[in-house]
Amino acid sequence: MDTTEFRRRGKEMVDLIADYLENIEQRTVYPDVEPGYLRSLIPEEAPEEPDTYEDVVKDIERVIMPGVTHWHSPYFYAYFPTANSFPAMLADMLSGAIGCIGFSWAASPACTELETVMMDWLGKMLKLPEDFIAGTHGQGGGVIQGTASEATLVALLAARCRAVRMILASDPQRPETGITSKLVAYSSDQAHCSVERAGMIAGVRMKKIPTEQSDKYAVQGETLRRMIQEDKAAGLIPFYFCATLGTTPSCAFDHITELGHVSGPALYKIWMHIDAAYAGSSFICPEFRPLLNGIEFADSFNFNAHKWLLVNFDCSTMWVKKRSDLIGAFEMDPLYLKHDHQESGRYFCTDNSLFRSLKMWFVFRIYGLKGLQDYIRKHVELAKEFESLVRADQRFEISADVVLGLVCFRLKGSNEVNETLLKRINNGRKIHLVPCLLSGQFVLRFALCARTTESRHIREAWQLITQLAEEVMQELPH
Amino acid sequence: MDTTEFRRRGKEMVDLIADYLENIEQRTVYPDVEPGYLRSLIPEEAPEEPDTYEDVVKDIERVIMPGVTHWHSPYFYAYFPTANSFPAMLADMLSGAIGCIGFSWAASPACTELETVMMDWLGKMLKLPEDFIAGTHGQGGGVIQGTASEATLVALLAARCRAVRMILASDPQRPETGITSKLVAYSSDQAHCSVERAGMIAGVRMKKIPTEQSDKYAVQGETLRRMIQEDKAAGLIPFYFCATLGTTPSCAFDHITELGHVSGPALYKIWMHIDAAYAGSSFICPEFRPLLNGIEFADSFNFNAHKWLLVNFDCSTMWVKKRSDLIGAFEMDPLYLKHDHQESGRYFCTDNSLFRSLKMWFVFRIYGLKGLQDYIRKHVELAKEFESLVRADQRFEISADVVLGLVCFRLKGSNEVNETLLKRINNGRKIHLVPCLLSGQFVLRFALCARTTESRHIREAWQLITQLAEEVMQELPH
Repeated sequence: MDTTEFRRRGKEMVDLIADYLENIEQRTVYPDVEPGYLRSLIPEEAPEEPDTYEDVVKDIERVIMPGVTHWHSPYFYAYFPTANSFPAMLADMLSGAIGCIGFSWAASPACTELETVMMDWLGKMLKLPEDFIAGTHGQGGGVIQGTASEATLVALLAARCRAVRMILASDPQRPETGITSKLVAYSSDQAHCSVERAGMIAGVRMKKIPTEQSDKYAVQGETLRRMIQEDKAAGLIPFYFCATLGTTPSCAFDHITELGHVSGPALYKIWMHIDAAYAGSSFICPEFRPLLNGIEFADSFNFNAHKWLLVNFDCSTMWVKKRSDLIGAFEMDPLYLKHDHQESGRYFCTDNSLFRSLKMWFVFRIYGLKGLQDYIRKHVELAKEFESLVRADQRFEISADVVLGLVCFRLKGSNEVNETLLKRINNGRKIHLVPCLLSGQFVLRFALCARTTESRHIREAWQLITQLAEEVMQELPH
Repeated sequence: MDTTEFRRRGKEMVDLIADYLENIEQRTVYPDVEPGYLRSLIPEEAPEEPDTYEDVVKDIERVIMPGVTHWHSPYFYAYFPTANSFPAMLADMLSGAIGCIGFSWAASPACTELETVMMDWLGKMLKLPEDFIAGTHGQGGGVIQGTASEATLVALLAARCRAVRMILASDPQRPETGITSKLVAYSSDQAHCSVERAGMIAGVRMKKIPTEQSDKYAVQGETLRRMIQEDKAAGLIPFYFCATLGTTPSCAFDHITELGHVSGPALYKIWMHIDAAYAGSSFICPEFRPLLNGIEFADSFNFNAHKWLLVNFDCSTMWVKKRSDLIGAFEMDPLYLKHDHQESGRYFCTDNSLFRSLKMWFVFRIYGLKGLQDYIRKHVELAKEFESLVRADQRFEISADVVLGLVCFRLKGSNEVNETLLKRINNGRKIHLVPCLLSGQFVLRFALCARTTESRHIREAWQLITQLAEEVMQELPH
């Protein structure tokens, strides 16, 4: 395919995408296929000679679309949102064409520099403490990761490195493996599974801190303090705590100010990482910013701009107070990466990545801060609207505070009846939800996801849910 | 921005991209900016109110382009190629619009299934042993990772998990931390820095196996055998070996058949991972496939289709003989990811990703296997052409066998003279190269990178290099 054909096919693709998104409501949100459906629809091997472009495009509807879960349908309420906006898509097109791999400043200066500046822009939107802003002289700053899982791991590894160095500094004879085997990290029992996995990867103990429904599933400072004390008494070395702002099951918020006093430098020199994967975007609104109070105690902070801030995947934004902590933990120095401006840790970036900051730049400028705030607020309002529909129906209950765009709810009654209801909802394929477990109860999660969801979709979804609930309650014994 | 405006802006962006790539030759390949150049060109904060789209587009030339290293210029010969093709860009546009996150089969069945089938297509193009093909009943199969670094780490973690389980199976009382601290992994001293980093992340010893110029920088079976024996005698547990096919400095090839006999199941049950990040794409050509002989001894194999196979970043293709080894090492099971078709490890995919297999599908079909082979062969021919230009000049020497698209060369003489030459080349900004160290010698790497590089560019580059060499040799004492 030459440039002339690309001009034609590219424009056709723009129309195909616009058509897809314009009419996405008409598609079945959750596909009705069995595992293995796709293999039989296409050849077993790649063609020797080229296929025509027309054939490839025809196969999008024949092969792909029947198996797509339409995350951007206004009827999609599963998991958490993933961003999808036109400015971000335009920036991604450009990023793909420039196609530079930004593993060092010299590999493409604009790529590294725009990332640093965009992370400052976003940090300022969030009113992060000055410590996290790179500016021209700061020691902290932001870097884009692929996912929150990656950020959690990166923070954990930097914390491990810092802990080992600190201990070796005071006791240089101590064998390093002896230190690692004593390290212990903590996170909420509500934390995302990737936090536990980060511990597995790094080969360190990760303890889950129990939470209670009565505490709104937030980790209490006292609980953490007690666990740390017990572990220290047992000869272990507490070194890392991952707090969550907006947990995956119920969007619960750990009390980071309280926790900061426990894990902060004054007491134990434990690295506090804050994972706000979903909720982080909302902190650009003054009314939600108090949820982030206590950030001053953190060593690192991360959220997924690719979830709720209209910047398409992947764009997981992470800040640290000391860039040198990250650089020190990962530094490698082969000659083929050296260049004349190799310096001082002013810029740092992840291993390999495209020009991801371009889409932040496009989105921030084309929406403006106000446009982004409006978008967040609209989702929260829709969640509140759904919450009031649930509360108005005596058969249902709300299972966790509705703080942002997630409503956890259930039929009063057994787990079985709720499991059946959810199955019925998803098998109907008109809307799509996933469940969670809260204090042993099977709960339905209604997450505001699509950019195009409006009040009418919410009401339609609720009508469907109540109708199916009625059926289920008639069939199942109470 | 609404759909109507996206149709217009998207088509403008297609033209902008086509113009950029059509005229990329006219741009300075390596930017002439100082660190910090970008910050002063844009505001310190995001705008409150939206900027106009026109202003954003104008800023591409004003702010971004002056700082871009143009990886797809035919004058770019640095690092290794990164893929950039029109079919892949079209597929990426579609992938961005569908915007599903494929962390489970149910999250978007088409995403997971096309990935499995495309990895089979590619595995068959490479003539991988049947063990690595998923098919409908296989135990092995392929999965897309972001980078070769990720694949190396994933393989290492799976190997660590397998080793610990095997040891615990025979000695259930042994404490797990006691095992980890005895584990030892190996790779060539020519391996990519990410291999060493994988060891750091996983918290295991990683030993570098020395290589010699006389052995063409390939790891010798005998050397590995000796190191393993010594380590076993010292009470360590060898568990992982990362072989490289096509090293970053000089595109050297470890002798995997010989190494397979050392590290394979018969002798030590060491996990052998093969990192063919750059060279892997060439194995679709029958004449280069012998370089992969011995693959039958490997547990896992990876290369970057996003380097040399026209599939835009990111698309690092990894195969394993036993999917259960990967799944077992990373499995997490939260309720919000469960679904009705949760089964048997038939599908597995990385944590979070977009619909990356779409671009494999577009590229394989629109080029056809022959088109892809032609592309690889053209680069190899151009490298041979450059090699013969170097060999014809008595002042220069070739520093390593030219097997694929990389030519390592230097002026006969001191490192200083070669460093000066490289500096002069890059400061001239007409072509861009990076160096490597081979046996203490400073060497220039000439890597065929851009899709659009032709014989005339090679000859022009050589003319420039010889002209600068003459200047340098006149200035510097021999």
